[in-house]
Amino acid sequence: MSDAVSPLARPFPAMPAIAGVTLRVARAGYKDWGRCDLTYAEFAEGTAVAGVFTRNVCCSSEVELGRANVKQGRARALVVNAGNSNAFTGYRGREAVDAIMAQVSAHIGCPSEQVFVSSTGVIGVPLPKDKARAGIEAALVAAPCGWEDAANTIGTTDTFAKGAMATAVVDGRTITLTAIIKGSGMIAPDMATMLGYIFTDCAIAPDYLQELLSAAADKTFNCITVDSDTSTSDTVLAFATGKAGNQQINCSGCPGADAFAAALEDVCRQLAHLVVRDGEGAQKFIAVSVTGAVSDASARRIGLAIANSPLVKTAIAGEDANWGRVVMAVGKAGEPADRDKLSIGFGGTWAARDGQPLADYDEAPVAAHLKGQDITIEVDLGLGEGRATVWTCDLTHGYISINADYRS
Amino acid sequence: MSDAVSPLARPFPAMPAIAGVTLRVARAGYKDWGRCDLTYAEFAEGTAVAGVFTRNVCCSSEVELGRANVKQGRARALVVNAGNSNAFTGYRGREAVDAIMAQVSAHIGCPSEQVFVSSTGVIGVPLPKDKARAGIEAALVAAPCGWEDAANTIGTTDTFAKGAMATAVVDGRTITLTAIIKGSGMIAPDMATMLGYIFTDCAIAPDYLQELLSAAADKTFNCITVDSDTSTSDTVLAFATGKAGNQQINCSGCPGADAFAAALEDVCRQLAHLVVRDGEGAQKFIAVSVTGAVSDASARRIGLAIANSPLVKTAIAGEDANWGRVVMAVGKAGEPADRDKLSIGFGGTWAARDGQPLADYDEAPVAAHLKGQDITIEVDLGLGEGRATVWTCDLTHGYISINADYRS
Repeated sequence: MSDAVSPLARPFPAMPAIAGVTLRVARAGYKDWGRCDLTYAEFAEGTAVAGVFTRNVCCSSEVELGRANVKQGRARALVVNAGNSNAFTGYRGREAVDAIMAQVSAHIGCPSEQVFVSSTGVIGVPLPKDKARAGIEAALVAAPCGWEDAANTIGTTDTFAKGAMATAVVDGRTITLTAIIKGSGMIAPDMATMLGYIFTDCAIAPDYLQELLSAAADKTFNCITVDSDTSTSDTVLAFATGKAGNQQINCSGCPGADAFAAALEDVCRQLAHLVVRDGEGAQKFIAVSVTGAVSDASARRIGLAIANSPLVKTAIAGEDANWGRVVMAVGKAGEPADRDKLSIGFGGTWAARDGQPLADYDEAPVAAHLKGQDITIEVDLGLGEGRATVWTCDLTHGYISINADYRS
Repeated sequence: MSDAVSPLARPFPAMPAIAGVTLRVARAGYKDWGRCDLTYAEFAEGTAVAGVFTRNVCCSSEVELGRANVKQGRARALVVNAGNSNAFTGYRGREAVDAIMAQVSAHIGCPSEQVFVSSTGVIGVPLPKDKARAGIEAALVAAPCGWEDAANTIGTTDTFAKGAMATAVVDGRTITLTAIIKGSGMIAPDMATMLGYIFTDCAIAPDYLQELLSAAADKTFNCITVDSDTSTSDTVLAFATGKAGNQQINCSGCPGADAFAAALEDVCRQLAHLVVRDGEGAQKFIAVSVTGAVSDASARRIGLAIANSPLVKTAIAGEDANWGRVVMAVGKAGEPADRDKLSIGFGGTWAARDGQPLADYDEAPVAAHLKGQDITIEVDLGLGEGRATVWTCDLTHGYISINADYRS
């Protein structure tokens, strides 16, 4: 973890243990640092798993194997390596992942496809198999640890440990979801990677867990952006041990399905926001709310065009209510928009309505809003019922310093 | 013009007059500055015109009218206002453009649709009609001026005047193309706008001129990016007076058509490169060359994904051969790519081939190349024959300073 904590950081929440999940950490020494960098989670037999993965076609072997193995629906272990992403390493990278899966599955006595592996850090360097083997050996005999230890261990250039939790009543029982995530810090030649893990004692069928996770990711992880650059290793996995004793949720009609889905989306949104709050150089957390689009999908694409615009992000960094740049970003999104129906606001105050600056626009409340840390940009397209909210951070000198002020 | 000239600036070339084109400049006073800010060009009767315009759907009235009027194929005058883009100004902005077209067409005695107007600068403020009227009156009686005066007058936050020329032999006669362009400097709340104008004495039919200009723009202007943000006012117009006396070029089979097309593309490429060389905060000029893609269009989209990646652009700013970030950008482009066939190089030296870092990779020549001002990134996809080159600049503290370090 870096010394300079993000000004947008949140304290790590108090989170209970999840029955059927045991956490351990160890030091594999992937980098020359004096901290644990290998996280090992073991799950009770019968634990369901679901996952969403990067769409980057140059993804790592970890992502390829995870995407394939999540389909069989069961997980017994998770290994997370920090300090080396093992991406773009060809057959040697693949061999390293195979070796980890073989070592852990032999220890547990389970099929190797029930062992999930993630790696984050430098790209283009095969994960050293000897360090991984020794690290796992050490983890297997380490004392169990808590969520914050695990959250710190999966981090690379993150500036704070990130965790979230939620509860729901399912079938008369209180079920718990806990989660940790890392991202989106980065120091060259490392590549930002978002790795998120959700753990629950809820009994739920893997197929339906996958359906709910994919839907939640669309509204949360897929609605955040720090710099528009999609990592080769992004992974979010959900593990459900079933130890809460509820009747298994198999479909949307089952008792507690809606409550569980809401809690899952809540946890995913918390995690997604935490990643933005640790965005490189971030000084402000920005929510872009788009209404009146022709569809929700169109609203999201327009929101992302705004959230990815360097000119909008630098304007917010400068606390400048530059709604002209928002107009530009709407117009370049490639989505239906009518300039003369477009309205733009900041912090709930309209600056422009129906394609023109407001005659009586009072910039004082907007200027006050922009001095804060939590910024909202409102865009109404006046065309339909489509809506979406996306989240990002501002673009500052800190981003340039982190990513340009060095030689590798 | 700004005081701090881009380190990538080029001297203004010596450019001859074009028969049938008269240039004049005046001071309309759109901003509180002591410089000319209104450019007036008058063309001989029968001058052909063609144009390409921004795809931003929130475009200005100038763009809407230009796109419509270029279809009738003839131009007698061009007016360029600097300091106010007149974009997002509703009916008042439209009235201001109509008034300019009426004033100039009455003076010349031509249809108003043969008067083309461009504006660049602050967004959301209707162009003041009285200042425009007085500015045009002053321009109409001013002494004719040269290309560099015009190039300076159309600029806003540009740091140097940008011009280009080429010649071709058509039908036994030497024809000349001259051109000026402004962009892509920007100081809030101004919006970057690329305005480019090409003038030639060649006799050429408007429809065919349009065909050639669109094709040239696809390979030049549409292959550059500074920050991925598409302006509401981008415009490139080509005017052909026909005074060279060649037999009119009507189609690709006509004598001299290929020579003219090559000269036009040459001028467009020069202009496009000059815009990148004045990119905000630019310290390095970057050419991204993509080969082996499934098609030329796919190669261009991959090239733009690389050229728009903040992580790639900051790596180049840091003189860091971070080919992992290039891999990431290829993978996020949404185009066909095979990680295990991908090769990445800098300055002609491969860093990674066929999905793996080169075992004998010598970083010394790459490091030396990256210390220079003119950088090349080579990407080979190993899939097909598609190829494209796109151009951009690095992303530096200067960009943040220009766009964030102020309050409007």
